[in-house]
Amino acid sequence: MSACAALIIGNEVLSAKIVDQNGPHLIARLREHGATLTTLQVVPDDVDAIVEALTLARKRARFVITSGGVGPTHDDVTVRAVALALGRRVVRLPEMVDILQRAHAGEQVPDAALRMAEAPEGSELIAMGDTRFPVLLCDRVFLLPGVPQYFRAQLEAVLPRIPPEPVTLQVLFVDLGEPELAPILDRVALALPHVAFGSYPVFEKDAGYRVKLTVEHRLVAEVSAAVGRLLAELPGGSIVRRG
Amino acid sequence: MSACAALIIGNEVLSAKIVDQNGPHLIARLREHGATLTTLQVVPDDVDAIVEALTLARKRARFVITSGGVGPTHDDVTVRAVALALGRRVVRLPEMVDILQRAHAGEQVPDAALRMAEAPEGSELIAMGDTRFPVLLCDRVFLLPGVPQYFRAQLEAVLPRIPPEPVTLQVLFVDLGEPELAPILDRVALALPHVAFGSYPVFEKDAGYRVKLTVEHRLVAEVSAAVGRLLAELPGGSIVRRG
Repeated sequence: MSACAALIIGNEVLSAKIVDQNGPHLIARLREHGATLTTLQVVPDDVDAIVEALTLARKRARFVITSGGVGPTHDDVTVRAVALALGRRVVRLPEMVDILQRAHAGEQVPDAALRMAEAPEGSELIAMGDTRFPVLLCDRVFLLPGVPQYFRAQLEAVLPRIPPEPVTLQVLFVDLGEPELAPILDRVALALPHVAFGSYPVFEKDAGYRVKLTVEHRLVAEVSAAVGRLLAELPGGSIVRRG
Repeated sequence: MSACAALIIGNEVLSAKIVDQNGPHLIARLREHGATLTTLQVVPDDVDAIVEALTLARKRARFVITSGGVGPTHDDVTVRAVALALGRRVVRLPEMVDILQRAHAGEQVPDAALRMAEAPEGSELIAMGDTRFPVLLCDRVFLLPGVPQYFRAQLEAVLPRIPPEPVTLQVLFVDLGEPELAPILDRVALALPHVAFGSYPVFEKDAGYRVKLTVEHRLVAEVSAAVGRLLAELPGGSIVRRG
């Protein structure tokens, strides 16, 4: 299984100072990539909160992607929190110090900037082609920056490390209310517990259907069998459209 | 303290079938209301995942607002999961059965629709003026529907139950790089641990400043004192603008 979990770290998101762009972008890109996202948590710049959230995320997913809290200021506590959650010390990575020294073109690197070289012991760096900073990776936790343009660039270097699990999806648009639909769907879902069914009512009068039903599984054959079963159980003429 | 936590429940959000609108709306409205949001979790329609997320949320906040998973179909497991997390039985609320019966205008209410009357034992219903369904509340957990128009309407009935804690915010726009700023900010933040400082670098060349500094506290006097201290420590001329 290659399920992912996400941590969006930053007081600025929770306090409505900025609208998070990284969460929605990550959700969309993981879907396109074919990876399953099991949970997304938005947490403050607080070591305890991050440790707790990461511990939960690692229980729920093989890979974790974090966004934010990796800069040089006092509120950037992600590295420290991740190290704590992984039971690792924080060390200064020599490769990262080299990168910072090159970035400062021979001048003395300020102490605060050197904080950017800190990482959980045993971390790996994934080189980026065109931007300054590599992606930090430790125990299948990817630590990405919160600034959207950098987050997006680094995410593209992360995705190849996450094996995709393509999913087959079929959609039925049904002109039946959810209360009428519910017992049928319950029956089919109970008989096929490995298939994922979704039921999404629409409330616009002119939609032409009342519920959008989704059927998902890794295997095409399983989805076809489940759709066949639904077609057999639903009243004739209740399916308006398929997608 | 009147901190809130949020649970956005729904496979459809995590699998990118819909873009969540309720999370961003909730974040904005809580801020306007003057309540602190300590964490927001997006979780699947899965009882274990919801129980675990709610348990964490209740540790982190006095009030919890959930969105989604309260309809009549098999994937609507929020009521069952919340009851489990609160250690309460699921019961059918007589007041809710009455409402459903009125909604069905004398006709027999289908069994599936009656699932909408289920709630954790001891739940309270907050009447809504103009819409059919009241808000379900149990042990300071508010169970809201996932459909954005209903979520928004019910949220307005929830907010008066959450005592606001207005926050004073001052913003300094600083023309200093984060590495130069970091040691100063660290020093001030360490001396005033009760004040919340935020540091947000901008990367647009023409912004006219390099870092946006935020200073927050419940009391105006604390914010003024903290800003005064920053002004004293920052190099002359580095503050471009105040807001």
